[in-house]
Amino acid sequence: MVEIKTEIRELIKDKAWITLKYSLNEYDTFELAELIEEIEEKDEIILFRLLSRVQAKEVFQLLSHGKQEQIIEGLAQNTQKLSDLLNDLDPDDRTAFFEELPGTVTQQLIQCLSPEERRISIQLLGYPEDSIGRLMTPEYVAIKPQFTVEETFEHIRKYGRDSETLNVIYIVDNDWKLVDDIRIKELILASPQQKVEDLMDNRFIALNAMDDQEMAIKIFQDYDRVALPVINDEGILIGIVSFDDIMDVVEEESTEDFHKFGAFQEAIANPLTERVFSLYKNRVVWLVALVFMNIFSGAAISGFESLIQSMVSLIFFLPLLIDSGGNAGSQSATLMIRSLAIGDVEVSDWYKLIGKEVVVALLLGVTMALAVAAVASFRAPEIVLVVAITMVLVVLNGSLIGLLLPFVFTKLKLDPATASAPLITSIADISGVIIYFTVASWIL
Amino acid sequence: MVEIKTEIRELIKDKAWITLKYSLNEYDTFELAELIEEIEEKDEIILFRLLSRVQAKEVFQLLSHGKQEQIIEGLAQNTQKLSDLLNDLDPDDRTAFFEELPGTVTQQLIQCLSPEERRISIQLLGYPEDSIGRLMTPEYVAIKPQFTVEETFEHIRKYGRDSETLNVIYIVDNDWKLVDDIRIKELILASPQQKVEDLMDNRFIALNAMDDQEMAIKIFQDYDRVALPVINDEGILIGIVSFDDIMDVVEEESTEDFHKFGAFQEAIANPLTERVFSLYKNRVVWLVALVFMNIFSGAAISGFESLIQSMVSLIFFLPLLIDSGGNAGSQSATLMIRSLAIGDVEVSDWYKLIGKEVVVALLLGVTMALAVAAVASFRAPEIVLVVAITMVLVVLNGSLIGLLLPFVFTKLKLDPATASAPLITSIADISGVIIYFTVASWIL
Repeated sequence: MVEIKTEIRELIKDKAWITLKYSLNEYDTFELAELIEEIEEKDEIILFRLLSRVQAKEVFQLLSHGKQEQIIEGLAQNTQKLSDLLNDLDPDDRTAFFEELPGTVTQQLIQCLSPEERRISIQLLGYPEDSIGRLMTPEYVAIKPQFTVEETFEHIRKYGRDSETLNVIYIVDNDWKLVDDIRIKELILASPQQKVEDLMDNRFIALNAMDDQEMAIKIFQDYDRVALPVINDEGILIGIVSFDDIMDVVEEESTEDFHKFGAFQEAIANPLTERVFSLYKNRVVWLVALVFMNIFSGAAISGFESLIQSMVSLIFFLPLLIDSGGNAGSQSATLMIRSLAIGDVEVSDWYKLIGKEVVVALLLGVTMALAVAAVASFRAPEIVLVVAITMVLVVLNGSLIGLLLPFVFTKLKLDPATASAPLITSIADISGVIIYFTVASWIL
Repeated sequence: MVEIKTEIRELIKDKAWITLKYSLNEYDTFELAELIEEIEEKDEIILFRLLSRVQAKEVFQLLSHGKQEQIIEGLAQNTQKLSDLLNDLDPDDRTAFFEELPGTVTQQLIQCLSPEERRISIQLLGYPEDSIGRLMTPEYVAIKPQFTVEETFEHIRKYGRDSETLNVIYIVDNDWKLVDDIRIKELILASPQQKVEDLMDNRFIALNAMDDQEMAIKIFQDYDRVALPVINDEGILIGIVSFDDIMDVVEEESTEDFHKFGAFQEAIANPLTERVFSLYKNRVVWLVALVFMNIFSGAAISGFESLIQSMVSLIFFLPLLIDSGGNAGSQSATLMIRSLAIGDVEVSDWYKLIGKEVVVALLLGVTMALAVAAVASFRAPEIVLVVAITMVLVVLNGSLIGLLLPFVFTKLKLDPATASAPLITSIADISGVIIYFTVASWIL
């Protein structure tokens, strides 16, 4: 891999375009894509123009969104090459690319498409964002139940060349309504004269184009399929979704949850290429919101000013106690957010989890109280007592907040990951301050 | 789906075993698995025993690990049924199940296998945990280059029945060394008399059995393959890994990162079924470690006791300031952990990110300082100044800790997600306390 790159880089440096053009044929599209990701913008356009039409399409689909935009800009003068490229792209990859562009640019690019491809793109873009409709491709093979196995293979040879997958063949009736799917394995293992309808089991799983992409992930995981058919409300087959598109969605969804849990407003694509202002914008909202929220913990403390003045050593334990509540809460929230995301836990399960959480949190709180009592043992015994009791209470309080907040957000139709670690920490802090000084005023 | 479940539940309640046995044939294995996950233990064993041998295997493979263990325990008296089930399981699913069991139980169960299956299991278990070897199945179809397309299909019909996939056929030489792979699509589209060697491009991607599973995820994502061949160091084909096993790994890896970031020691399988003690054990380690760490923030505060006593109002801003540093740090860590996990960022990129992080953190710090100054404007101007300056510094400090810690852990050969939100918060707190009171002693 490294040698190939050095070789190509040398050829670019020497401006040996003709040698380069011929040697490009020998490389794998993935290697070429990786190379284009790494080289400078002016070289990348040159390299891309030298690719054959088939290579150009495949390499483009492997590039990151930022590079894709650069390539499209670079090809702007060369309308023929641009329109060839856009027309050649697989409809689902093209839609994914268009989706990230500003609407006006998408409109301009759609004009470069052939009438047929334009129709497909506009149709795919018509489905809501995050819907299965956006992921599907109309490139599949469909047959009728009355075909024989032999006729099916003839049909595949004739129409299957562009199909995204031949692993599963779809069976439709005369209205193009999906009636079954059949794995190519079964067709290969069957005798050529058998009729397709005799091989059918009339059991199939289909996705609805309007459903959310998260639904598709679950179905792919549960049913071990390479591709799934997509139907509309009338049951008409309108496309297929293949597992590689779903793998991308799985990763995107995880990243989104992860970033939201870390208190980003939206997921960041790639920190290396993301612009400073966009990083700032995406981080500042929650940070400032939390500043305003934390004013409450300050207000709570000022309510106990005389207590603090009479015993400043109470302050030494403040960060420790409020942090402990936040830490326990982050753990509970993490567990719930992830379990809700992968479907291990449903919203309706919340009450089943509370009892267990209380037991676990009490065990944790007591252990941590013992730890802190050991460390603080040289202090006055009543201080140790206050700190230990507070520890048990803040851990219990933090854990319950962390457990319940993801459910609350889900109920409010928000992403459960909105219950970010910083949000849980801040809420646990405010309540921790109040718990601590209340316990202290009782005992001291 | 709901109706089916009610129907089956009714039949169980009425103890209508014979009707139940016949009606079970009509259900999809996934529906049956979902049902078994939900019903009580005694009913689930009854239901499972009523399944046909083929259904039993398929349903078992879809169950969660906890249920799988219950079923195996429930079948303990029925050695024949137990050994049929274990022998029927796909080798990769069986390995995944064995992997989670205590070693002694695995040894007992391996005795139930036929000599051939026992050989396969022991071989798969011989690969390191998290290696590709553990995921592979020996059930694939391999052909020789000199076969014609027609002979290939005959071969597939003869040997392909058990193959995990027929989407890709592997081409090996006389030493069973992998020389190429070919998609079934190309074989179907070729003419029957063509020789396989004429269709070969001698380009293939293979995984090494000793490689880490994370490597396989990247390759699957980059190359859009349904299955990948696995070779040993000599290039001999020893198995295949299919995408559905990889989808499970993708999800496991994300969950592991997510849970570690939330300060769990190890990933939790499912909070609904996990035992209280195991939840406790998995959470307590980091929580207690952080308690000891937070002692330092207490110690830091006690170093400034006289300053605090002369100006108690400084304490009102303490939770706000230390939290802000921790929040900014959590964001940076989130971004780095996820980017390292999905390969957007390499360890060697750390220095490229520092400059940008400093700029973003300063922008954030200034914005937050303005926010807090506005809120605190009724306080003495020098307090407002101290708080605002501290805010900028703690946000910068927290962001840099959050950015760098995941890289440090990676360098130490630990999971970058070990840089959990609570750990970042605690480190940011200790340094935040010191920064705050140092700034205050200077200015006041």
